[in-house]
Amino acid sequence: MALHWGICSAGKISHDFVCALSTLDPTLHSVMAVAARSAERSRKFAELHQIPKSYASYEELASDDSIDIVYIGSINTEHLSLSKLFLNHNKNILCEKPMALNVKQLTEIQSLAKEKNLFCMEAVWSQFFPIYQKIREIIASREIGEVQIAQATFCLPILTKDHVAMKELGGGVMYSLGMYTAQFAMMVFGDETPKSVSVSGHLTPEGVDSGANITLLYPNNKMATLVYSGICRMSNVAEVGCTEGKIKIYPFWCPTHMEVTHTKTGRTDQFQFPLPDSNVKPFYDNATGLRHEAEL
Amino acid sequence: MALHWGICSAGKISHDFVCALSTLDPTLHSVMAVAARSAERSRKFAELHQIPKSYASYEELASDDSIDIVYIGSINTEHLSLSKLFLNHNKNILCEKPMALNVKQLTEIQSLAKEKNLFCMEAVWSQFFPIYQKIREIIASREIGEVQIAQATFCLPILTKDHVAMKELGGGVMYSLGMYTAQFAMMVFGDETPKSVSVSGHLTPEGVDSGANITLLYPNNKMATLVYSGICRMSNVAEVGCTEGKIKIYPFWCPTHMEVTHTKTGRTDQFQFPLPDSNVKPFYDNATGLRHEAEL
Repeated sequence: MALHWGICSAGKISHDFVCALSTLDPTLHSVMAVAARSAERSRKFAELHQIPKSYASYEELASDDSIDIVYIGSINTEHLSLSKLFLNHNKNILCEKPMALNVKQLTEIQSLAKEKNLFCMEAVWSQFFPIYQKIREIIASREIGEVQIAQATFCLPILTKDHVAMKELGGGVMYSLGMYTAQFAMMVFGDETPKSVSVSGHLTPEGVDSGANITLLYPNNKMATLVYSGICRMSNVAEVGCTEGKIKIYPFWCPTHMEVTHTKTGRTDQFQFPLPDSNVKPFYDNATGLRHEAEL
Repeated sequence: MALHWGICSAGKISHDFVCALSTLDPTLHSVMAVAARSAERSRKFAELHQIPKSYASYEELASDDSIDIVYIGSINTEHLSLSKLFLNHNKNILCEKPMALNVKQLTEIQSLAKEKNLFCMEAVWSQFFPIYQKIREIIASREIGEVQIAQATFCLPILTKDHVAMKELGGGVMYSLGMYTAQFAMMVFGDETPKSVSVSGHLTPEGVDSGANITLLYPNNKMATLVYSGICRMSNVAEVGCTEGKIKIYPFWCPTHMEVTHTKTGRTDQFQFPLPDSNVKPFYDNATGLRHEAEL
């Protein structure tokens, strides 16, 4: 039986998430309804994506008994209240990152989900890409030795957008880009806990972070070095340095390419993981890769 | 008339420097003598590179009146005393990096050179590569906008070597690899002074640095992010992120490849700067590029 999705908010990321769902088996994933604050936007979104129902309020979506799980694609400042709304209506939720703006908010959401016995996940889509799974396997197999360094850079000129630049909209480049570099380090080092975390970066006059360089120091000389900035564009690759080789992936937050180099032989193996196209064109690069987090 | 070179020490880097000199016009650069502590090593080095004279002590080289300039390729701990020896014998010097182990030593060498009115330079070869000159031109022309980020990574498994691992031999990975990332940032940001410098890294039980992540914060949201490690190998590229494009070079400390990407058009221009071969095979990658610092 198909999982019945509800889509909360008709913005760009919701658009792309529905594009991604459309590439999956329709007997497994079916979008039943969309909700936005504007009836017009909601209706247009439903029309474009051929969604049966459109609502002009999130409360209506929460009250729709046909929905199993709600995808929350609204702006950051609404994640707390919307997560609570849907959980309180016994809906499972997949909430765009950042799920909350601080630990206190996050704990509140998690406690409620636990109390209600509902599925509740932050949509860190990178973690579900086949390449991430492959990296976990390579690291576990130690075929290129032991991990020493994880490095990720994510710089795009997004500080021009209000929802990134303005503190009152839950802005800050760490929430938009920096978190991707952090999740990469956490994936590479798995259960290991850093013995120190250092951050050095800039704040804008509006009081949001524009970019930073982060160091996570782990025991045994291991480290993660993470760079993000909302001001200009960089190559945005990530690498894992191991004692007997290295792994390089790009674009690292939604990777389709991986290179694994064996230091001793100099051999580099190339891996390609192409993504399907959707009928409706997505806004963001490799956005049909959002399908992987829905398949979980 | 040819510049008459003396070579101080018969190690790998001296070997490579002489290979590089051999690719230059012999009427402009001529190696007259080599000196090492062992007569046998000195003689073999002279034979291999067809150098007229070989000495079994640095003092003999210093006393050779036919020498205009001495290349000092000895281990780090000897740079101070050897620089002073040659300057005191009125020889110009080109000394391998690090020229000294601390600022006090460096000031001593520089003062002596100034007093004697002699040429005295640290052999930071990267700075003389044609690609570095090209980067300076691109930055000055602002053809891809204003510089925002400089990023360089230099990781090679060199902590296995005594002269890197042992403090009493002037070891430490900053001296061997980290300094290359720092000179890259200094080149990119030219006369600008960082408003803060942060370093987070590891020390080995022997008390030398094994690797670190360095942040230089400059005014107006600009930053340099520098990573080095002596434990494993990474791709070791450097990038300059500008408001309207980016520059990528590799291998960044001795580059033969450059890519310049214009953000607006998506166009990437490729530049290749091949290096000549020498008759005797060098030890290090792209080592004939050492010729550029001799040509200065």
